[in-house]
Amino acid sequence: MALLDSITSPADVRRLSRAQVARLADEVRAFLVESVSRTGGHLGPNLGVVELTIALHRVFDSPRDTLVFDTGHQSYVHKLLTGRTDFTQLRRRGGLSGYPSRAESEHDVVENSHASTALSWADGIAKANQLHGRGHRTVVAVIGDGALTGGMAWEALNNIAAGQDRRLVVVVNDNGRSYAPTIGGLARHLDTLRTTQGYENVLSWGKRTLRRSGPPGRFAYDALHGLKKGIKDVVAPQGMFEDLGLKYVGPVDGHDEQAVEHALRRAKAFGGPVIVHVITEKGRGYTPAEQDVADRFHAVGQIHPETGLPLAPSRFGWTSVFADEIVRIGRRRQDVVAITAAMLQPVGLAPFAAEFPERVFDVGIAEQHAATSAAGMAYGGLHPVVAVYATFLNRAFDQVLMDVALHKAGVTFVLDRAGLTGDDGASHNGMWDMAMLGIVPGLRLAAPRDEPTLREALRQAVDVDDAPTVVRYPKGAMGDPVPAVDEVDGVDVLARHAGPDDAPSVLVVGVGAMAGTALETAELLAAHRLRVTVVDPRWVLPVPAALTKLAGEHDHVVTLEDGLVDGGIGALVGQRCGEVGVHTPVQSFGIPRRFLDHASRDQLVGELRLRPNDVARDVLTALGRAG
Amino acid sequence: MALLDSITSPADVRRLSRAQVARLADEVRAFLVESVSRTGGHLGPNLGVVELTIALHRVFDSPRDTLVFDTGHQSYVHKLLTGRTDFTQLRRRGGLSGYPSRAESEHDVVENSHASTALSWADGIAKANQLHGRGHRTVVAVIGDGALTGGMAWEALNNIAAGQDRRLVVVVNDNGRSYAPTIGGLARHLDTLRTTQGYENVLSWGKRTLRRSGPPGRFAYDALHGLKKGIKDVVAPQGMFEDLGLKYVGPVDGHDEQAVEHALRRAKAFGGPVIVHVITEKGRGYTPAEQDVADRFHAVGQIHPETGLPLAPSRFGWTSVFADEIVRIGRRRQDVVAITAAMLQPVGLAPFAAEFPERVFDVGIAEQHAATSAAGMAYGGLHPVVAVYATFLNRAFDQVLMDVALHKAGVTFVLDRAGLTGDDGASHNGMWDMAMLGIVPGLRLAAPRDEPTLREALRQAVDVDDAPTVVRYPKGAMGDPVPAVDEVDGVDVLARHAGPDDAPSVLVVGVGAMAGTALETAELLAAHRLRVTVVDPRWVLPVPAALTKLAGEHDHVVTLEDGLVDGGIGALVGQRCGEVGVHTPVQSFGIPRRFLDHASRDQLVGELRLRPNDVARDVLTALGRAG
Repeated sequence: MALLDSITSPADVRRLSRAQVARLADEVRAFLVESVSRTGGHLGPNLGVVELTIALHRVFDSPRDTLVFDTGHQSYVHKLLTGRTDFTQLRRRGGLSGYPSRAESEHDVVENSHASTALSWADGIAKANQLHGRGHRTVVAVIGDGALTGGMAWEALNNIAAGQDRRLVVVVNDNGRSYAPTIGGLARHLDTLRTTQGYENVLSWGKRTLRRSGPPGRFAYDALHGLKKGIKDVVAPQGMFEDLGLKYVGPVDGHDEQAVEHALRRAKAFGGPVIVHVITEKGRGYTPAEQDVADRFHAVGQIHPETGLPLAPSRFGWTSVFADEIVRIGRRRQDVVAITAAMLQPVGLAPFAAEFPERVFDVGIAEQHAATSAAGMAYGGLHPVVAVYATFLNRAFDQVLMDVALHKAGVTFVLDRAGLTGDDGASHNGMWDMAMLGIVPGLRLAAPRDEPTLREALRQAVDVDDAPTVVRYPKGAMGDPVPAVDEVDGVDVLARHAGPDDAPSVLVVGVGAMAGTALETAELLAAHRLRVTVVDPRWVLPVPAALTKLAGEHDHVVTLEDGLVDGGIGALVGQRCGEVGVHTPVQSFGIPRRFLDHASRDQLVGELRLRPNDVARDVLTALGRAG
Repeated sequence: MALLDSITSPADVRRLSRAQVARLADEVRAFLVESVSRTGGHLGPNLGVVELTIALHRVFDSPRDTLVFDTGHQSYVHKLLTGRTDFTQLRRRGGLSGYPSRAESEHDVVENSHASTALSWADGIAKANQLHGRGHRTVVAVIGDGALTGGMAWEALNNIAAGQDRRLVVVVNDNGRSYAPTIGGLARHLDTLRTTQGYENVLSWGKRTLRRSGPPGRFAYDALHGLKKGIKDVVAPQGMFEDLGLKYVGPVDGHDEQAVEHALRRAKAFGGPVIVHVITEKGRGYTPAEQDVADRFHAVGQIHPETGLPLAPSRFGWTSVFADEIVRIGRRRQDVVAITAAMLQPVGLAPFAAEFPERVFDVGIAEQHAATSAAGMAYGGLHPVVAVYATFLNRAFDQVLMDVALHKAGVTFVLDRAGLTGDDGASHNGMWDMAMLGIVPGLRLAAPRDEPTLREALRQAVDVDDAPTVVRYPKGAMGDPVPAVDEVDGVDVLARHAGPDDAPSVLVVGVGAMAGTALETAELLAAHRLRVTVVDPRWVLPVPAALTKLAGEHDHVVTLEDGLVDGGIGALVGQRCGEVGVHTPVQSFGIPRRFLDHASRDQLVGELRLRPNDVARDVLTALGRAG
């Protein structure tokens, strides 16, 4: 790794000879495979952009020129070339972030890992450059073809095209897939560009990529389509982008560093907005990734670096239970269809897609369209199940509100990775969903606590045909079932601890997967001779009337949720109590209103004082029984 | 109006002869001008789609075929042709909604007045048709060229293109403007289509439209651009849409009913997704509207039907104060720039644009891009002011959260039409903003109560450079200034009512324009011999510590806000009090979590029991002093 060790800043990269550049690319790839297989992280995307990132730093002068990476999944190479080579603690507390981070480097600008935003950032920065008389600087946005399916990217392209006098380079990193193969008309258009005569010969590996890019039927269609369009594409393969008024350069073989440099230099010299279309291969140079069709190497846990097999297979988790139950529901209910936003595998819809291929819709990285087209499907008599990561539903708040809820559409949203996720950093925590959805009229939300309640919640959700329903659950492994010992007006009672008659009585409300914490907290409180009832309402939005009734029968209410405290379930319990004249104090535990640095989930739970010990101590303090 | 009177359903429209169709169009236009000038409403958009709507109902068989109108601003003609001819109570309680309404007719599908959603609805409905074996039915979405600048429309087009076997017709109603002239690369592309040789002769009024479509420089550029692209556009003017794999028909003169019918019949017969590009003229047939460049006839209050001048000029309102103050700020601060999402006039940015043309950016109907490009500008050293209607910021929640707040960007959002707006119906009420923004870390929100506090809030907001700031105010007229009589730790005291020493003390917190209600409520409470303090914190997010302190010094807290009660400012005051051990009951008044039917603002205030009398009565009840 002699060469890589000598790189401390982009200036060092610019100094390299052509032969050294090739060596550096090899070293970076070896480093990534070796390092990320130990720590886990985004392997495939970074292997695909080794030459591209080297070329970017040779052609542009960061941070004078601004490099913006969309999603930031592909920023490891950029980190290596800007002096950050200690990957041993990647995505761990105190170690490198898995995404760009302003705290780490002046070369990092956008930390947001939500897709399709980079072009808007770039447009804003270019406008600021222009107004500040820095118009000679270039702003470069690197965006995947998958992220181009997100509507924001289109909004930005339309605005970028309007600024013909601003130096802005959009690098489309086209690997034909984001998490899943990119879908829709845009994908076909990019396919057409890739297959255009005259470019095919340049791209020695082009055919292989195409063979990998989808089922045979799709390729046949694309080819036919290309023929139909005929001479037009041969003369002007750029098509759509030029229609917008954007100069187009490409396609370029993204693993030919010299070719990429050449294209970027042309783009830089142009002086206005330019699209550079770079064809790359996700996982390039790492055989297990190149051969994997299901794209499991997009992000990996710890894996064996040679076989690519996981070192610690994940336990039977929430996603798997959803994957299984939705297939069962699908067998029973012909009208149930599934929608995913480019995340078929990660959200567990692959088995459903295998059994009901005509009933699953991958809309691209397009949460807005996912929600509103679901409302349309519900109008047409279907019951759509939209499965997304909790943090990404934030993208579709207005559509959930105005298209689904206002129209009383029976649409079920399944939110995976709800609550603290930890190592992916601030923007991946699914901590806003309950507070955000709590203000949507008519919406009902379930937070199941274990496998049986998850299965039941899903079955109940798809039975609602006049309102949006939401089922949310956390990332990762699932604990053992937590059986109810009783039920009060539909609210599960998980435990009752008797105590002296004159002891204060505490109602502990555990939301979803916080049931375990609730039970342990209750035991600690009971050990302090308090009377404690632990309940789980499962359906927490709207707040069930049974909860306010129970609150009125206790001296103190404790709510525990894996979501924002402000505007969260505990807050609503307090509001509902006040409205019906129940003045029992409500003490709410959850996530404070701040962005959380990346760390393990356990570390965050400790830091936020959400462990049973911490909670019990705070409750005892509130009750004047501390010490 | 003999002919129009005979139309009770689309079947009657289909039966008309060619000559009768022309007469019907004339009658509809006369009816609209006469009727809408009396009631107020969306005049221009509807005058533009008279022939188009007639043609739609002659070619398609609603509701078997589905017609979806984007935003619904242009649904008056549709209402007339589907048996709804009593426009006397348009947009009033019990009268016709200003938008499509499922409660009114089986011919109405989408009530959401937020732009760019129709294509997603249509995609979902077409998918449902296909799965239900109703694939022979056609789904038609009518969308303006302005709404195509919204990202959702692009997400939908990409998905529609992927469904080549679904009968879906996208009618692009292209009048070159939404509220403002449509901007960006797309607008240029549509211009190019409009000017293409061979079509120009067909469109007798084409040149006039072009002359109206923007400043001379822009047209010159377009023409040059068209020449550069050369032969390609002549051979294949459809360009971009075909690149996506969408068949394109047009452009068609949207005021030649026969031509539109012909194009729609071709599209219907095609059997897959088709774009029909119809060129219309907003305000067509009404001279004051045709001659108005500033597009004041998009939506009108009561006007004189011949001159088009307002009958009751609006009083000096919130928007005007913003318009004036932002210009003053702009003179003082070179770094302050303004962003609008196709609403330059309605949000009051026209004077700023006139004085600082290079510092205002109209991004199209693209709130997501507005927010994220603002974050980019802030990174580049500017202070952007994003001015939108409150309800439309819902579109950019994720961008406010992840791009602006997470990156500690100094961006100011100015929310006009916050709170109850009334006559535009459920989706226009700006009632979600405070609850939604209350969960954004670091965000600060001011709700000024009058002119001086609005001006001051704006000045304070643009001075914050490390967090998003929000200034929100209601629609319409502004009351007289409400001076503070005292200040406690930055919280304005508006009134103090003494009372017997043993009387309960009530703290009334008036948020923003609710100051008046707060003061009147306090007087009523004082008349019941309560001690009352009325305060206005002005900056309500985060909740100032002074409020919890004041709450602790009173026996009862009343909060009044023109926003959702759930998760609102009152809820947060209650939470903050609980956290610091202040257990004074907090009674919150605001808007409940449900969608509100259209009615006047006053009617809604009464219905929601937000008048001083109602509030005082409820407070006395809570204090056990009723009766």
